[in-house]
Amino acid sequence: MTCHEDGQTYAASLNLIQIAYRRIKEHIHCTPVMTCSTLDGMTGSTLHFKCETLQKSGAFKFRGAMNSIMALPEQQAARGVIAHSSGNHAGAVALAAKIRGIPAHIVLPTDAPQCKVDAIEGYGGIITPCAPTMESREAVCAEIMARTETTFIPPYNYGPTICGQGTIALEFLKQVPDLDMLIVPISGGGMISGIAVAAKALKPGIEVIGAEPTGTNGAADALKSKQAGQLVQCERPKTLADGLRGRLGDLTWPIVRDFVDDIITVSEQEIIDAMQLCFERMKLVVEPSGAVGLAAALKIPFKTQPRLQGKQVGVVLCGGNVDLAAMGLWKQFKAAVTDL
Amino acid sequence: MTCHEDGQTYAASLNLIQIAYRRIKEHIHCTPVMTCSTLDGMTGSTLHFKCETLQKSGAFKFRGAMNSIMALPEQQAARGVIAHSSGNHAGAVALAAKIRGIPAHIVLPTDAPQCKVDAIEGYGGIITPCAPTMESREAVCAEIMARTETTFIPPYNYGPTICGQGTIALEFLKQVPDLDMLIVPISGGGMISGIAVAAKALKPGIEVIGAEPTGTNGAADALKSKQAGQLVQCERPKTLADGLRGRLGDLTWPIVRDFVDDIITVSEQEIIDAMQLCFERMKLVVEPSGAVGLAAALKIPFKTQPRLQGKQVGVVLCGGNVDLAAMGLWKQFKAAVTDL
Repeated sequence: MTCHEDGQTYAASLNLIQIAYRRIKEHIHCTPVMTCSTLDGMTGSTLHFKCETLQKSGAFKFRGAMNSIMALPEQQAARGVIAHSSGNHAGAVALAAKIRGIPAHIVLPTDAPQCKVDAIEGYGGIITPCAPTMESREAVCAEIMARTETTFIPPYNYGPTICGQGTIALEFLKQVPDLDMLIVPISGGGMISGIAVAAKALKPGIEVIGAEPTGTNGAADALKSKQAGQLVQCERPKTLADGLRGRLGDLTWPIVRDFVDDIITVSEQEIIDAMQLCFERMKLVVEPSGAVGLAAALKIPFKTQPRLQGKQVGVVLCGGNVDLAAMGLWKQFKAAVTDL
Repeated sequence: MTCHEDGQTYAASLNLIQIAYRRIKEHIHCTPVMTCSTLDGMTGSTLHFKCETLQKSGAFKFRGAMNSIMALPEQQAARGVIAHSSGNHAGAVALAAKIRGIPAHIVLPTDAPQCKVDAIEGYGGIITPCAPTMESREAVCAEIMARTETTFIPPYNYGPTICGQGTIALEFLKQVPDLDMLIVPISGGGMISGIAVAAKALKPGIEVIGAEPTGTNGAADALKSKQAGQLVQCERPKTLADGLRGRLGDLTWPIVRDFVDDIITVSEQEIIDAMQLCFERMKLVVEPSGAVGLAAALKIPFKTQPRLQGKQVGVVLCGGNVDLAAMGLWKQFKAAVTDL
């Protein structure tokens, strides 16, 4: 499943993304696009928010998982699928497998938050715990695959995953044809790769901007790779945006290199501030990763740079799975009852 | 602005509510209706959530304020309006007045949360602080009214307010014509009065249920009044649901008595649990009052009572203005950065 263009082979194309959309359309939500005049005033642009927070399983990851799983031949699918993830990919694979009616094995680190465990179990996923290291995840995964002949569903560096995520752009440009710019969170690059390929094919003049957490360890591999013109190896970024701790892969990097116009990095404080704006102004629950696109939009000089004035900007709010119980929120409300 | 029916005079009618809708339609959001299969499974019904959390100013109160202010004659309106409120009515009046292009005086208790102050100022409201007692609110209000000849906009016990809130039902029944039941938070009774009058006129068989916090002091005046068949005076309820600390008035009580089928009371813990479900499952920010309808829905025996099985239930999520900063949420996220 690859696409050739100008002698370069990419893992996604508009045609493959359109095929993916036909494949998953009846199973996904066409997520709403919301606007907020306060945020327009703050940024000096017209912002359109694609609410993948309201996607099934609470994140865009469901699109890629659903496409990857629906694309499997009948016999192979029947043996089930497997994923290792402590995040949204796990829930997405469990739910997509449930919809196809096949088993999903999820290898889950023992330090995963309870809300994720509950969600995966709610979708009927078969959880196998592992130690919270990548080595343990991969070892446990390999053992199950050898025993059960299940198919591994990669989280981002995989053609069907990238094409599934690209369906966001098909919907978004249909909902808001006037978009001049798309701002998309980036880590492993699956979402932005699919979106960039589809959006540039449908509307060549559109700008696609990656929004990347700098992390407290400065491990922004997308920015560094774009600046260097080659894939730069960084350690995993230390960031609250737990959905954005991946790194570019050999399939996503060529697309990011050739189709993404720019990378804007954001600090942890900027992510928290953007989350607060989403909660307070849009009344939408977003996870830290989900707010990274807005955090980047707030750094673009729409008000002062003439070429940016009046831009119609699409921002993907990519997920809403944040463990507010772990932040003590409901305990705070309980405590407030005694103060009444 | 009253309506006669069976010898009884009510402060609202379908006709008046339809007039209100034509008056405010271009200024309000037709708020979306959302569904959630997890909550359907939990309750054993099909729930449709009318998201007034996404209404302008973050709550349904904007409808009533907009209608009350648009209904004022030109000369009277030009002198401005005034409201005293520590809650959503204040923001709603400030924004509605801004839209009509007239001044809004807001008498605000000094203990109002900063986020409310910011919102009112953002809408251009002229804030006059007062002591956090009803006596002080009324005295400061009276002084300003005597000096400026501004018009007082009541929060619920007022025909144009009731009719404005009733427009929720017009939209809801158009969006989901199959609704069998509506669950609406109740305190002063403005919202449920307007909704009940409109819904029963459009669809006589529909059930309208009030959802009322019991409060830690057991001051559920709607339940007690319905049980007694007359308006029972209670103290103000002590509840986290700060939007539901009002009491029925002489205009709302006759409507609640004659058009509301039942009252379901909910505890503080049930309100917190329902909030958590809204945040986690629907990814929607609701304030405690906003979750009271869901809390009530969770108590209705849809699964076990044959007459309730398969019901299509509308729930109004009435507001999303909750001060999460005061609950320490953003500080918790900041602290989490240092643990990365």
